[in-house]
Amino acid sequence: MAYTFGTTVSGSIDSVRETVTAALAEEGFGILSTIDVAATLKAKLDIDGDPYIILGACNPSLAHSALEAESDIGALLPCNVVLRQEGDRIAVRVMDPDAVLGIVGNPVVDEAGRQAKEKLQRVVASLS
Amino acid sequence: MAYTFGTTVSGSIDSVRETVTAALAEEGFGILSTIDVAATLKAKLDIDGDPYIILGACNPSLAHSALEAESDIGALLPCNVVLRQEGDRIAVRVMDPDAVLGIVGNPVVDEAGRQAKEKLQRVVASLS
Repeated sequence: MAYTFGTTVSGSIDSVRETVTAALAEEGFGILSTIDVAATLKAKLDIDGDPYIILGACNPSLAHSALEAESDIGALLPCNVVLRQEGDRIAVRVMDPDAVLGIVGNPVVDEAGRQAKEKLQRVVASLS
Repeated sequence: MAYTFGTTVSGSIDSVRETVTAALAEEGFGILSTIDVAATLKAKLDIDGDPYIILGACNPSLAHSALEAESDIGALLPCNVVLRQEGDRIAVRVMDPDAVLGIVGNPVVDEAGRQAKEKLQRVVASLS
């Protein structure tokens, strides 16, 4: 199953991160967590890899709606946005909230996932 | 579909967080992110809610194995562990990596998810 959607953009991972963060903000998503996967793998396993970051993006209104309906839904939040080196470009890959939240089987959560996906698709479109 | 498993324990959310972090470390999971959901909802929407934290737990070896097989898998990582107030106890709810990673349909990822679940089930059992 497709569990992400996204695009690739030119630029350094740091500049793309700034652009993506601003585009997410336009759609009401703040960044609640930032995980530097490459640095973690280097620190823990001494593995050298390409730049790879996971941004945890959250739209508070949609998250609140989902949490009211399903108290454990935090286990599937926030929506992750992966930034990773792909050749000389940066791949921006967004967790598909529709696919992931769909495993819960709760109509209110489904609706929040659908709305989140629409917003995140606009974020991706704005990057192209 | 069941997308979490867990238990409830007595104590404050801060003390439970320490206990859970130590139990995760015993199984090779570090905490890569900590999201205070209650504080976020208060700050962004002025909503008062019970304590609710999401810990992002990662076993570097399993994550590396999954990433080698599926470069976008970071969109579904790390494994979230929700700590939330439930009456006078703290509910510890772990994202079921078997259920979530299963949507990818990649045998290597499936195996990493299965191994992560076994470890996380031992973490939960150790809390009881």
